[in-house]
Amino acid sequence: MLGFVPGNLNLYKMAFRHRSVAIMLKNGAKSSNERLEFLGDAVLGAVIAELLFKIYPYRDEGFLTEMRSKIVSRVHLNQLAKKLGLDQLIEFDPRIVNYPTKQGSLLGDAFEALIGAIYMDKGYNFTKSVILHQIIQPHVDIHTLELTETNFKSKLIEWCQRHGKEVLFELMANEEGESAKLFTINVMVDGENLGQGRDYNKKNAEKMAAEKACQTLDI
Amino acid sequence: MLGFVPGNLNLYKMAFRHRSVAIMLKNGAKSSNERLEFLGDAVLGAVIAELLFKIYPYRDEGFLTEMRSKIVSRVHLNQLAKKLGLDQLIEFDPRIVNYPTKQGSLLGDAFEALIGAIYMDKGYNFTKSVILHQIIQPHVDIHTLELTETNFKSKLIEWCQRHGKEVLFELMANEEGESAKLFTINVMVDGENLGQGRDYNKKNAEKMAAEKACQTLDI
Repeated sequence: MLGFVPGNLNLYKMAFRHRSVAIMLKNGAKSSNERLEFLGDAVLGAVIAELLFKIYPYRDEGFLTEMRSKIVSRVHLNQLAKKLGLDQLIEFDPRIVNYPTKQGSLLGDAFEALIGAIYMDKGYNFTKSVILHQIIQPHVDIHTLELTETNFKSKLIEWCQRHGKEVLFELMANEEGESAKLFTINVMVDGENLGQGRDYNKKNAEKMAAEKACQTLDI
Repeated sequence: MLGFVPGNLNLYKMAFRHRSVAIMLKNGAKSSNERLEFLGDAVLGAVIAELLFKIYPYRDEGFLTEMRSKIVSRVHLNQLAKKLGLDQLIEFDPRIVNYPTKQGSLLGDAFEALIGAIYMDKGYNFTKSVILHQIIQPHVDIHTLELTETNFKSKLIEWCQRHGKEVLFELMANEEGESAKLFTINVMVDGENLGQGRDYNKKNAEKMAAEKACQTLDI
C-alpha cells in the first residue's frame, strides 16, 4: 500500500486495532492502537513542520502553525486514511463503534497509528520519506490548502442554522494589556459555551473560539 | 555547551534572536527565532513521545500525553534553558522585554529554537541523541516527574488566594452521552472565564479547566 515491505508485522496489526477490540495483556494493560497514535501524531507533526519550514522560508510561525493544523486536522486525516484504503484494514467492534455513522476519528486515528508503527519499525528518516513521497506528494495539494481559508466562524454559523441552533459570540472580558486590549470571546451554542478565544484582535478571538467550537462539534 | 561542533553557525545565531531584535529581510519578512521554535517544538515533541513510549510500555496514551506535557511545559523548559546557560546567549531588546521580570517564555522559546537549529544543521537522529544524552539524561528525572502530580486545581486556588481573586468552577452543561453524562466546566477568576474542560468525569473536567486557566495566567 505504501510501497515498502514491513519488518515487524505485529506493529502494523496493532496500528489497526481500535480500542473497541483491544487485547488484554497479561499484566492487565490493554493493547490497541492508541499508544501508536500518540507516537505517530508527534512524528507526523515534526515531519510536516519541517516540510512547511522549507516550503515557506519567509512566512512566520503563525502561518506555519495554521498550515500544519489544516494538514493534520482530523477531517483531513480521515480523508487521507480513506484515500489510502485504511478503512479496509481497521479492526473494530461494530456493536460499539457504529461505522460509518459514529466513526468519528476512527480513520484518522488509525492513520496516525500507522505512522507510529512505521516509525518504530523503520526509524525517522524512512517514515519521513513515506509521509512525503507516498502520502503528501500524491494526495495533498499544499498550495490549494494554503488558499482554502478555513472560515470557522461561517462554518459554525451555517451548521447552527442547518440544525436550528442559536449561536452567539459573547465578549467576556477586554483587559488592558501593555499596549493593546486583550479580548476574551466565548461562543455559545444554544446557551452552552463551546469554545473560547483570546487575542488582541477581536476578530481573531472570535475565530479562535469558533474553531474550538467546530472541533468540539466535530464539524 | 552540548558537546558537539555546530555546522551552520547562522542557524544557532537565529535560534537566540528574540523577536524584539528581529532582523528585517530584503523582502520585508522579519527574521527571529520564532520559526525555529515552531520546528524545534515539533521535533522535541516527537523525541519525547518515543522516549516515553519506550520507557512506559504498559501505560496508556493519556498517561504518555500527561508525562510529555510535564516535560515540555513552558515552566520546565524555562528551567532547562537556564540550567544549560541559554540565558547568557539570548539576544533581546531590554527596552521591550524587561528581563527577568517580564521574561515569560523567552528562555523556553530559545530552548525550542535551539532544538530546531540542531535539527536543521544535523538531522533527526543527531538531534534526538543530543536531547536524550545531553539534556534529558543529565537534567531531567523522569520518574520524579512522574510522581509529581501537577494539581492544577490547587495551584490555581492558591494563586487566587494569594492575589485576592475569586475563583469559581461553574458547571455549564451536563449532556447525556451514549452511556454517561458529559460535563462542561468553566473556571471563572474574578468573573472572567479563563478555561473550560469537558469530560465524562466531573473532577477531570474541572482539572482540565484549571490547567487551561493556569496556562492562561502563566502560573
